[in-house]
Amino acid sequence: MGVGNSFGRIFRISTWGESHGGGVGVNLDGCPPKIPITRDEIQIELDRRKPGQSRLTTPRNEDDVVEILSGVSPEGLTLGTPIAMLVRNKDHRSNDYDTNAVAYRPSHADATYDAKYGIRAVAGGGRSSARETIGRVAAAAVARKILDLYCGCEVLGYVKAVQDVVAEDVDPNTFTRDQVEDSLVRCPQPDASNAMIERIDAIRKTGNSIGGVVECVARNVPSGLGSPVFDKLEADLAKACMSLPASKGFEVGSGFAGTLLTGRQHNDEFYIDEDGRTRTRTNRSGGIQGGISNGETIIIRVAFKPTSTIGQEQETVTREGVETKMRGKGRHDPCVLPRAVPMVEAMMALVLADALMAHAAQCQLFPAGALDSVDANPLGKKLEGLGASV
Amino acid sequence: MGVGNSFGRIFRISTWGESHGGGVGVNLDGCPPKIPITRDEIQIELDRRKPGQSRLTTPRNEDDVVEILSGVSPEGLTLGTPIAMLVRNKDHRSNDYDTNAVAYRPSHADATYDAKYGIRAVAGGGRSSARETIGRVAAAAVARKILDLYCGCEVLGYVKAVQDVVAEDVDPNTFTRDQVEDSLVRCPQPDASNAMIERIDAIRKTGNSIGGVVECVARNVPSGLGSPVFDKLEADLAKACMSLPASKGFEVGSGFAGTLLTGRQHNDEFYIDEDGRTRTRTNRSGGIQGGISNGETIIIRVAFKPTSTIGQEQETVTREGVETKMRGKGRHDPCVLPRAVPMVEAMMALVLADALMAHAAQCQLFPAGALDSVDANPLGKKLEGLGASV
Amino acid sequence: MGVGNSFGRIFRISTWGESHGGGVGVNLDGCPPKIPITRDEIQIELDRRKPGQSRLTTPRNEDDVVEILSGVSPEGLTLGTPIAMLVRNKDHRSNDYDTNAVAYRPSHADATYDAKYGIRAVAGGGRSSARETIGRVAAAAVARKILDLYCGCEVLGYVKAVQDVVAEDVDPNTFTRDQVEDSLVRCPQPDASNAMIERIDAIRKTGNSIGGVVECVARNVPSGLGSPVFDKLEADLAKACMSLPASKGFEVGSGFAGTLLTGRQHNDEFYIDEDGRTRTRTNRSGGIQGGISNGETIIIRVAFKPTSTIGQEQETVTREGVETKMRGKGRHDPCVLPRAVPMVEAMMALVLADALMAHAAQCQLFPAGALDSVDANPLGKKLEGLGASV
Amino acid sequence: MGVGNSFGRIFRISTWGESHGGGVGVNLDGCPPKIPITRDEIQIELDRRKPGQSRLTTPRNEDDVVEILSGVSPEGLTLGTPIAMLVRNKDHRSNDYDTNAVAYRPSHADATYDAKYGIRAVAGGGRSSARETIGRVAAAAVARKILDLYCGCEVLGYVKAVQDVVAEDVDPNTFTRDQVEDSLVRCPQPDASNAMIERIDAIRKTGNSIGGVVECVARNVPSGLGSPVFDKLEADLAKACMSLPASKGFEVGSGFAGTLLTGRQHNDEFYIDEDGRTRTRTNRSGGIQGGISNGETIIIRVAFKPTSTIGQEQETVTREGVETKMRGKGRHDPCVLPRAVPMVEAMMALVLADALMAHAAQCQLFPAGALDSVDANPLGKKLEGLGASV
Repeated sequence: MGVGNSFGRIFRISTWGESHGGGVGVNLDGCPPKIPITRDEIQIELDRRKPGQSRLTTPRNEDDVVEILSGVSPEGLTLGTPIAMLVRNKDHRSNDYDTNAVAYRPSHADATYDAKYGIRAVAGGGRSSARETIGRVAAAAVARKILDLYCGCEVLGYVKAVQDVVAEDVDPNTFTRDQVEDSLVRCPQPDASNAMIERIDAIRKTGNSIGGVVECVARNVPSGLGSPVFDKLEADLAKACMSLPASKGFEVGSGFAGTLLTGRQHNDEFYIDEDGRTRTRTNRSGGIQGGISNGETIIIRVAFKPTSTIGQEQETVTREGVETKMRGKGRHDPCVLPRAVPMVEAMMALVLADALMAHAAQCQLFPAGALDSVDANPLGKKLEGLGASV
Repeated sequence: MGVGNSFGRIFRISTWGESHGGGVGVNLDGCPPKIPITRDEIQIELDRRKPGQSRLTTPRNEDDVVEILSGVSPEGLTLGTPIAMLVRNKDHRSNDYDTNAVAYRPSHADATYDAKYGIRAVAGGGRSSARETIGRVAAAAVARKILDLYCGCEVLGYVKAVQDVVAEDVDPNTFTRDQVEDSLVRCPQPDASNAMIERIDAIRKTGNSIGGVVECVARNVPSGLGSPVFDKLEADLAKACMSLPASKGFEVGSGFAGTLLTGRQHNDEFYIDEDGRTRTRTNRSGGIQGGISNGETIIIRVAFKPTSTIGQEQETVTREGVETKMRGKGRHDPCVLPRAVPMVEAMMALVLADALMAHAAQCQLFPAGALDSVDANPLGKKLEGLGASV
Repeated sequence: MGVGNSFGRIFRISTWGESHGGGVGVNLDGCPPKIPITRDEIQIELDRRKPGQSRLTTPRNEDDVVEILSGVSPEGLTLGTPIAMLVRNKDHRSNDYDTNAVAYRPSHADATYDAKYGIRAVAGGGRSSARETIGRVAAAAVARKILDLYCGCEVLGYVKAVQDVVAEDVDPNTFTRDQVEDSLVRCPQPDASNAMIERIDAIRKTGNSIGGVVECVARNVPSGLGSPVFDKLEADLAKACMSLPASKGFEVGSGFAGTLLTGRQHNDEFYIDEDGRTRTRTNRSGGIQGGISNGETIIIRVAFKPTSTIGQEQETVTREGVETKMRGKGRHDPCVLPRAVPMVEAMMALVLADALMAHAAQCQLFPAGALDSVDANPLGKKLEGLGASV
Repeated sequence: MGVGNSFGRIFRISTWGESHGGGVGVNLDGCPPKIPITRDEIQIELDRRKPGQSRLTTPRNEDDVVEILSGVSPEGLTLGTPIAMLVRNKDHRSNDYDTNAVAYRPSHADATYDAKYGIRAVAGGGRSSARETIGRVAAAAVARKILDLYCGCEVLGYVKAVQDVVAEDVDPNTFTRDQVEDSLVRCPQPDASNAMIERIDAIRKTGNSIGGVVECVARNVPSGLGSPVFDKLEADLAKACMSLPASKGFEVGSGFAGTLLTGRQHNDEFYIDEDGRTRTRTNRSGGIQGGISNGETIIIRVAFKPTSTIGQEQETVTREGVETKMRGKGRHDPCVLPRAVPMVEAMMALVLADALMAHAAQCQLFPAGALDSVDANPLGKKLEGLGASV
């Protein structure tokens, strides 16, 4: 199991690295062989995640250049062996963090790390830094490739809300990545995008911070992914998203608003579409029923609190238990939302790639229909020719 | 890993059983030895979960009598070996479910089970029935005992909202189990409780259903539980709760409402209390910071959708892809909320017991202070007397 | 992970039960759906394992009647959900074990259980009893069925040696289950079988015990199962077999004897057979190279020590630390080997079924050849029609 | 779970890297915090493993300089976070391996990798190279430190046999690391050491290779480690050792030779030693009874086959299925045994450190005796003061 730095069952990542140590990285185990992947495809996703992309995010200029150390052939195909990726740390201004060593930053992990370990990497928050998500995003670039190749599955997120500025009319089935990336704040609805930018600019000037909500969808997900009890697809997605720094809430489909409806209003009635497929007329289930994908677009939302590091003075205590006051000095995001979009997408892609492989293991071992002709008699008869395909 | 029917790392449960087969049960592995536990203590929790407790819940009369098959000594002490518990199924009226075999119940798992497995236990929904939670609640009774013995930790939930009827003023630190159990709807605030009961009674008569929100707290949780990256305590709680039938959303601390605040408003400032302990003045973090418990009360909320089975006619399709109409005939809850309370409590207790043990493994192997005197020299010096205590 | 009572990654079993409690059982998670399996097929394997089959094994008469509690449809097809199986305990003569409560049986687990847990189920050795293997054998009956259906794979063991009586000339590729079952001692070579029976009869009369070696083979195993580093197929088989009671050693292929050869003598040279398949002329590798099956017959051997319980007086100590003498009184096998055969077969079948599913997950997600046409370009193109087959 | 590149439950390592790619490394998760460890301590173990130490091992000159990328404080204390370690690859002579790309080396993993993945890193055998063990040895240096600090536990191996040259009289309880390291072949018995060296020198000149047996012991292991069923301590050790390249067999205590004894001869009788501790007069159990350590010295043996790469011509086939002949050209060990010693030690140390932590989680959560005073009543009473120590 490890203790907390791995995610996934078959398509499984392990991240490592402190924000101000030798670097951060990820080890991806279980990747199918022969998947084409290039360093550039991974770098593109890392660049979406990195700080300093715009005035809205933290001005630290980290290049975050990824090196693939193993698991990919010179021709750019995965080998089926672990894919290790490394991003060296640069741009240390560790004296920005001097105060942290003695005073606990409110709503940060300083105090709880000390309570747990009795020791911590004081510079930059160690593992609690959002820099840890580099490994997730890098590995998820491979997951995205698998999903795309397998079924044209696309995972796409956007900023649904910044504080009370909400993008109401984004259609989960049609908004595009270009629309998202064209917005400084990653909101595909221009009016909402402008209002959000304005709000963030205003709060940045006060040294304060704000939060918001990311909505993320997965389209073209095959039905049958997930499992019915503890590893329900929505449960795995919830864990994935609630493991992101600053997340405070998770919803699937109708979410908390669904509690206001009656069953008659909430149920998704079935019909047969023109292609003869079983579909639902509405999608309050968010693409998942009984823990298993139903082929409709999967829709989740994640709440992110306002960034904890602010430029305003706050009361706190030192490690030695003395009350004091402090003011954040590191360079941090006034609003984490634009950078949270690729993080949520990454976690969703990791969950789906893993679910795809778990489903193949249990339910696609035998080709469709192969077992239909098997007699239920104790002697059994081997299915002709199956072994040869292994 | 298994595929979806196990939960927990060290304190780990595996549930089994269809709702209308030979029974349902749980296998609990990893329980510490010598924990006193009786069948009665487990039965009490099962009785809180079972249907037919009041007119508000489904009138099925299932006795749900638990049998402990292994892992507990005749004197009532755990042996450290797997604790297997079995509840036989009774009261089958399987013809209530005949239509299910051919027509998919809207927003149920019938269609997705078929998509995944190509076969399913049609009576009662198989594993998707809330009856599966019997094993969770039974095992959690042991987890509760451990938490209580270890640190007086108490896990307690209540119905926060039924549709738009909300219990606003329940203090997470002081409401009691007696107050909860005295309410037919498990809401400790009498006015809200009455309004909720009225609402459920009204909806029941129409054959419709409604949902709501459970809030659950854990008091006296030691600081240091959880881990900083993927297995953040809130991430494990989110997965635990989103694996419950009918759950649509999860929050910790301020949750989605926290996205409306600024960082200055949201941050929990530290102070030193009269006992010299580091505390926070507010608790928007919900008792968890950076994925690790901080010693404050842990507060979570779970959204449950309105029950999918309703007595009103709905459009649907058959397994063979023919459009049809159906009306629910099984006996089901018009509102799952009162019975959801012990389920959420169970999942929270399971997560915390497991976190306690994971923390002991990594961070309490050496007694507090034992390593302080160790020279950081390559030769090492054994710590006197430690081995003897194993 | 659990702590020691589960085995397997995807095809995963969890056993429970003390030898003299309410029963023993197993929970099998991850079984593919629609596999035909009957209670009778499982019972046949349990009957091979049970004591009292002949004068050579312990005369306890346990019926070991298995009940399938879940996971199988009324028509006898697996549902993809957990298969729970229960065997009630009968025939308690617990006063046979009274001395055990105070005096530690030499080379038994009494003392170490006390050291670990500080408490133990004294009657019958609790979990250390060979009765625990009932769950393994029951679940393995399902694994065997999958292996047979998938590729006609057959797992078959026999008693290779009892003490220094060795069956030298058994051909791993041709001996049959009938030959094995026709022998009271499960040795397919009649002369060796007779000599073994004679030896066991002689030792039984003295109240002493003897051990020996089981050889087990798997035929028609597809190449490609296993993985190259920690989960090498031989490593998983070693763990599986060394988890059986009384096992002291494990070998694959040439084993310890292979250390006497030179590389030139030991290497298995390749050739192309009449069907165009890559084969090896010899099989000192035992069907596994670099941790992965190569399509040749897999051959393993397991050493079992002489049964610890003997009727002769031995020196020991009590739980309170007082030296004393004791003489075994329970009814036990003078030689565990005949009953060890189905146990070793069970563990091998469980390992192979799990390896088959892990391989499907990682390496058969995409159909053979599907990725050959994929451009290694960042835009990717979905593979037509794949999603539909999910 | 991952698929094969991770080992351990709580103290868990994941290795990565091809032998001729960007490097090899390890990610160690779950390490207790505040353990003093230096780069030099790790390098010492790596230097014992590396090729080119003497004329007996492969003349490749790899520096194998380890870099600690994370998880250790500047003061040299573990942080409780993942410890990532990297060794860059040097000294590529990849044209040595050109033939490998087309012809399968007999008894190597070339053919099975192709069968499994349909692609492989041809240079140097990829993950099947012994170079993969660098990560194991590096992580095990930390495990050794923990074992030493916790209970003075020492893990120490030596070459027991090279072909039929056997060191008969090495006392498992008294031989020293200095004696082992003073021997070119890592055999502490001078006469046997000389004979082994002579044998290896002779075989090296012929371009052939030989194998042998490593014995490894662990002293001062506390009783109570391991668990009674699938994760028996000997089962975990067997898996650990059988996952090493070229291993063909595993024994604990009496091993295969134990099958020649009667129960009366084999049983380890108990007595009380001068310190009042329960001990066994003999140690045929090898320090483990019923899967759990009993406090005696743990003794295991691992068989290693003769190195597969030899300088003599052998028959083989190409990837395209054409029969051909080949002669090994890479620089390889004529006998892997001297370098296998630190590898076996590493695996044993990893198993024991993990077992120590698993035991702490389940059986040391409550201090010894803490539960003795607890009433077995349903109300429970919190144990005073326990929470504070978390």
